[in-house]
Amino acid sequence: MNIARTKNLPIGIFDSGVGGLTVLKALREALPNEDLIYLGDTARLPYGTKSPASIARYACRAAGHLQEQGIKLLVVACNTASAVALDALREQMHPLPVIGVVEPGAMAAVKARPRGSHLVLATEATVRLGAYRHAIEALDEEASVTELACELLVSLAEEGWLDGDIGVDILRRYLDGLDDDRRQPDCVILGCTHFPLLRDTIAAVIDDATVIVDSASTTAVVAAAALSDLGLLNTQTEPGALTLLATDGATRFARVGGQFLGEDLSPDDIRIVDL
Amino acid sequence: MNIARTKNLPIGIFDSGVGGLTVLKALREALPNEDLIYLGDTARLPYGTKSPASIARYACRAAGHLQEQGIKLLVVACNTASAVALDALREQMHPLPVIGVVEPGAMAAVKARPRGSHLVLATEATVRLGAYRHAIEALDEEASVTELACELLVSLAEEGWLDGDIGVDILRRYLDGLDDDRRQPDCVILGCTHFPLLRDTIAAVIDDATVIVDSASTTAVVAAAALSDLGLLNTQTEPGALTLLATDGATRFARVGGQFLGEDLSPDDIRIVDL
Repeated sequence: MNIARTKNLPIGIFDSGVGGLTVLKALREALPNEDLIYLGDTARLPYGTKSPASIARYACRAAGHLQEQGIKLLVVACNTASAVALDALREQMHPLPVIGVVEPGAMAAVKARPRGSHLVLATEATVRLGAYRHAIEALDEEASVTELACELLVSLAEEGWLDGDIGVDILRRYLDGLDDDRRQPDCVILGCTHFPLLRDTIAAVIDDATVIVDSASTTAVVAAAALSDLGLLNTQTEPGALTLLATDGATRFARVGGQFLGEDLSPDDIRIVDL
Repeated sequence: MNIARTKNLPIGIFDSGVGGLTVLKALREALPNEDLIYLGDTARLPYGTKSPASIARYACRAAGHLQEQGIKLLVVACNTASAVALDALREQMHPLPVIGVVEPGAMAAVKARPRGSHLVLATEATVRLGAYRHAIEALDEEASVTELACELLVSLAEEGWLDGDIGVDILRRYLDGLDDDRRQPDCVILGCTHFPLLRDTIAAVIDDATVIVDSASTTAVVAAAALSDLGLLNTQTEPGALTLLATDGATRFARVGGQFLGEDLSPDDIRIVDL
């Protein structure tokens, strides 16, 4: 591998859909001169309710497509795929570095509230595997971790209903399923890339003293450190280029994805690939 | 094709997930001696937010699997697949008869409220194609039809939250997007197989004089008539056998599907097939 040439390759970012654009946004802010190529596997979303075997198969296929395009680092910007398929992806992509969002999210939570009580809001698949629990407990033996699957919040974010009482009522109903002492944690972790869009909704339900952390900004820091360690930071001075790929539905991707990215997208900005 | 042998084949029922079990339930009641084989394409659900090309590809693959198992009639128990892919499915399955749920739903609506105003609650894909509008207008020139995409109600039914105010609030918010004169129609059509589970929620929001129709029972009547016309009704006297197939997630299928079928299912009742 030629370092000078590899430096100029884009960072690959992969998600089941558009939620990972919150991670892409953080990467652009942290690394403005890097070229980025994003693939949303919209033909197979959502991953969160599928079986581990299906999730791993889909994730490896999507990551393989980015590898063929030529990338220098893969960011798995999907909590479910990070929880379920990170080992399989690292095996497939070797020697390319692969960064998931679960470990950075756990790092951010432990840093914000050492020895704290953490509540992880995530998809069914992420909760089933206890991905955040394991990652947090590995960093902080005295932490306590509760994980809560909130599929309807994913749909709510996809629908773009980011204001109003419906999100509040949905979250309250999920929280009602927990024991009393787990409903007001020290830290809430947004364990799904859709949930940063619902930050206001979540803040309205939890205690003011509770900190809300998400994986996006810490993942960007971890990615920047990895590229720096490998001598692979892009040295170009102009702003990096952005390429958006999806496996289905450019119109919907543009409409919903624009909200996640925080800027208007047109269907023409998205290239559909058939995996 | 040998009629005596074909008679003994099961009816194939195909859906993107578990929602079609409401149609299967109606078929069992109308045709208790028929063997039924159901395939839920849970690895690729939901269809409602995907592109027409992807929906048609998935539907044809799933239907092809049922055809290989040996069936005498295919019921497409998914509104989205019926709206998008019925012609493609009929072409592929020919000469096997293929029945969708959109036309029976339209028939039921026109019969219930001739020259009426109809409100169709459905998925994005079904609405985008105007499937119910075309089917109703073909039957009743004086009917007026409004179609409304309600993706969050699909997720709500999948989550099993069939009571409480959240569904009411979600439906009200969708209805708020309509002009005043369209919010209180003569007839509401449940244009997604998930929505019969939310019948109480929907009834709580609409006017008492409004009739609610779904496709399930009319589809069963149409299927029975088709088999009778072809001389293919099963003449066995014992209750028909039921085979349940899914492309992913037996545990989730059993948990959610049991609600749709109205009886307890165990993961062992579902055979996972890899398409």
